Amino acid sequence: MSKAEHYCSHVVLTSHPSQIFTKSIPVQWGARSARERGPVVASLTDMTARNAIGTHGGAYSVYRALATSAGRLRTIFRPDLTNTAPAERIGPFPSWSAADKIVALDPWGANVHDDFREFFKRGYDIRPSIAVTKAHIHMPEIAEAIATGRLRADGVIVRKRGDVVVTKVALEPVWFLPGIAARFNVSESELRRGLFQYTGGMFPELVTRPDLKVFLPPIGGMTAYVFGPLRYVADIRKPLTCRVHDECNGSDVFGSDICTCRPYLVHGIEEAIKSAQAGGSGLIVYFRKEGRALGEVTKFLVYNARKRQKGGDTAAEYFHRTECVAGVQDMRFQQIMPDVLHWFGIQRIDRFISMSDMKYDAIVKSGIHILERVPIPDDLVPDDAKVEMEAKKAAGYYTPTRVKSKRALKRVRGRRLNE
Amino acid sequence: MSKAEHYCSHVVLTSHPSQIFTKSIPVQWGARSARERGPVVASLTDMTARNAIGTHGGAYSVYRALATSAGRLRTIFRPDLTNTAPAERIGPFPSWSAADKIVALDPWGANVHDDFREFFKRGYDIRPSIAVTKAHIHMPEIAEAIATGRLRADGVIVRKRGDVVVTKVALEPVWFLPGIAARFNVSESELRRGLFQYTGGMFPELVTRPDLKVFLPPIGGMTAYVFGPLRYVADIRKPLTCRVHDECNGSDVFGSDICTCRPYLVHGIEEAIKSAQAGGSGLIVYFRKEGRALGEVTKFLVYNARKRQKGGDTAAEYFHRTECVAGVQDMRFQQIMPDVLHWFGIQRIDRFISMSDMKYDAIVKSGIHILERVPIPDDLVPDDAKVEMEAKKAAGYYTPTRVKSKRALKRVRGRRLNE
Repeated sequence: MSKAEHYCSHVVLTSHPSQIFTKSIPVQWGARSARERGPVVASLTDMTARNAIGTHGGAYSVYRALATSAGRLRTIFRPDLTNTAPAERIGPFPSWSAADKIVALDPWGANVHDDFREFFKRGYDIRPSIAVTKAHIHMPEIAEAIATGRLRADGVIVRKRGDVVVTKVALEPVWFLPGIAARFNVSESELRRGLFQYTGGMFPELVTRPDLKVFLPPIGGMTAYVFGPLRYVADIRKPLTCRVHDECNGSDVFGSDICTCRPYLVHGIEEAIKSAQAGGSGLIVYFRKEGRALGEVTKFLVYNARKRQKGGDTAAEYFHRTECVAGVQDMRFQQIMPDVLHWFGIQRIDRFISMSDMKYDAIVKSGIHILERVPIPDDLVPDDAKVEMEAKKAAGYYTPTRVKSKRALKRVRGRRLNE
Repeated sequence: MSKAEHYCSHVVLTSHPSQIFTKSIPVQWGARSARERGPVVASLTDMTARNAIGTHGGAYSVYRALATSAGRLRTIFRPDLTNTAPAERIGPFPSWSAADKIVALDPWGANVHDDFREFFKRGYDIRPSIAVTKAHIHMPEIAEAIATGRLRADGVIVRKRGDVVVTKVALEPVWFLPGIAARFNVSESELRRGLFQYTGGMFPELVTRPDLKVFLPPIGGMTAYVFGPLRYVADIRKPLTCRVHDECNGSDVFGSDICTCRPYLVHGIEEAIKSAQAGGSGLIVYFRKEGRALGEVTKFLVYNARKRQKGGDTAAEYFHRTECVAGVQDMRFQQIMPDVLHWFGIQRIDRFISMSDMKYDAIVKSGIHILERVPIPDDLVPDDAKVEMEAKKAAGYYTPTRVKSKRALKRVRGRRLNE
């Protein structure tokens, strides 16, 4: 036996639809009820019951695999879901059964223990892909807004000492592949082949199992923070303020001044709180799409290229530099972003705290009305971030003011690398 | 042709060592120079030149695959690396060629354009897995430390208005599989099979290509923030303050009060700045291991179980609740964490801003001395986070004070879910 054969022993490299998966339950995406839709079974304790490609936990499935390989986690472990059910029930909404409104998450992923009770009884290992909890958050900028009188402590949403009460929801990506393909205007088989090939060969089931329509990709998910009563978010009689935010660790956590990410996020939170205090609600959705979904290594390479180029870092060259290094200006693709808004049953956003034309277009195209777009206040834009801000405005970002001419964009300059 | 065959056409499902990869360069992990070691080639523009499993960008490779499938990114795109080289050169250090010190990142991953110049000339598409840049960061808590006189603006490290100058480094995970297996005390073949099977079948090359020893897993990486001169970090004549921080989005960004993550991180940054101002340097390493590397869905499920259990959320039940839901208390595994410290050439940490026994043990075992462990100041621990803090102290976390008895742990209580 060759060394390679030794490695391969006892491992089924890829499954095939001709192999009979007796316990596999069909998934009727877009069905009217949880029961008709059927549970997504992506756990690994019983391979014959799976009806999805990939597994739970997004990228953290790799850590779980490491733990299991190292003998720290039993392969047969099933979670004890006692007391884990959503802190508050959400939905179902009509959007949950409109097959084209939600294709990037499992609308029935939160309340699995109740919704799929009979399947649990029959022995299926179904895991939640959505979790809903409550929290108190404390941000220094919000505490300052209270201290300076921009926000008031109402005792319900904003407590004394600046604590803010929220309902928060973590959502894992669960992709219905025909729906994802439709969003990107490619055929399902093109999408499947592409996802397999251009990841370097991840999940051969993408090509060998066209019968499996659901894929849990190993990427980060979303976290939603709701201010005010959860049921108001879907209530068209109540005003809703919303920001959709894409992760930027350098600014969101460390306060880097090259972009407006944290200042705009905090402004969104302040406006969301005000909306809740005014009798409506506020929603912030945080997407794990670091550095325009290019990752931080590429982002830092772009920073270097921008700050070292001849003529310095200018708004005129902003997009070009990213494209040279990454091949695209932006990899975030807002096409599947609105799904989480439809999961919340949103039909109208009164105040949208974002200037992104891509986000706006995607949301409006998906059937949600946006009444007002709220730009970041000028005094929250760090000096070095003006390069990005002016470049984006000139490229189509929403702004109530005039965009700069090509010539003027050359004069919007950031620091050099060693300043 | 069946439907399944149609999907499979033109796709090589998994490669095999018997297939000849004529251009593949052997990787001599732990070799003395970049040239002897050879470049890691994980790009997808020429499949015959690859010498690694997986591809660059961690989990973001999935977004790139989506972009490519949708026709937004050319499959033949190669980055223009002009001006992207590290803002400052790091190493090489003796640890770079000690095969067992660094197994979870590519020590030669930063300066590829110089180090592998001849391979670029021969047409290889080599991508950096590490990027080094400079930034100014502004955190409200640091601004407050300056305002209240705890920190002073020195004009070099801390500028006027509270800007802090840093060198920052993004590092992608690049795993040398035999070394990872050794760290976890399992055989390489067990590790490979486990990573494949327990991810639901990711990367069959893990089992079909035992000749490929390098794997770029689709997980988040690390970001290092250096305060003070970069060369001081490895200089044993200069004091070094260091914190190794595991991501917690709920606290790090949103300030959730159920844990001490952001307060401890900010305290670490403040101490790192002081160390740099005192003639040494400071280092913060941020690891993408959300919710103990269980991900946020599991984390929120655990929060619910803790806050709803009979008797309420207590320090006595803290670890047990996670284990019920997740199967393990913690999935972060600090075994491969010290690699980044060895990449920086660190031999001694004067002040280690962490109470984690797992982190401490892993670092010391890897051969780095730690002189002092610095606990989080009591006044930075939010009330609701006392449950976690006391539970961890009782379980072996470093503390200069007495740990609570089993009985006392039952009296350390957090909020209920709806308070």
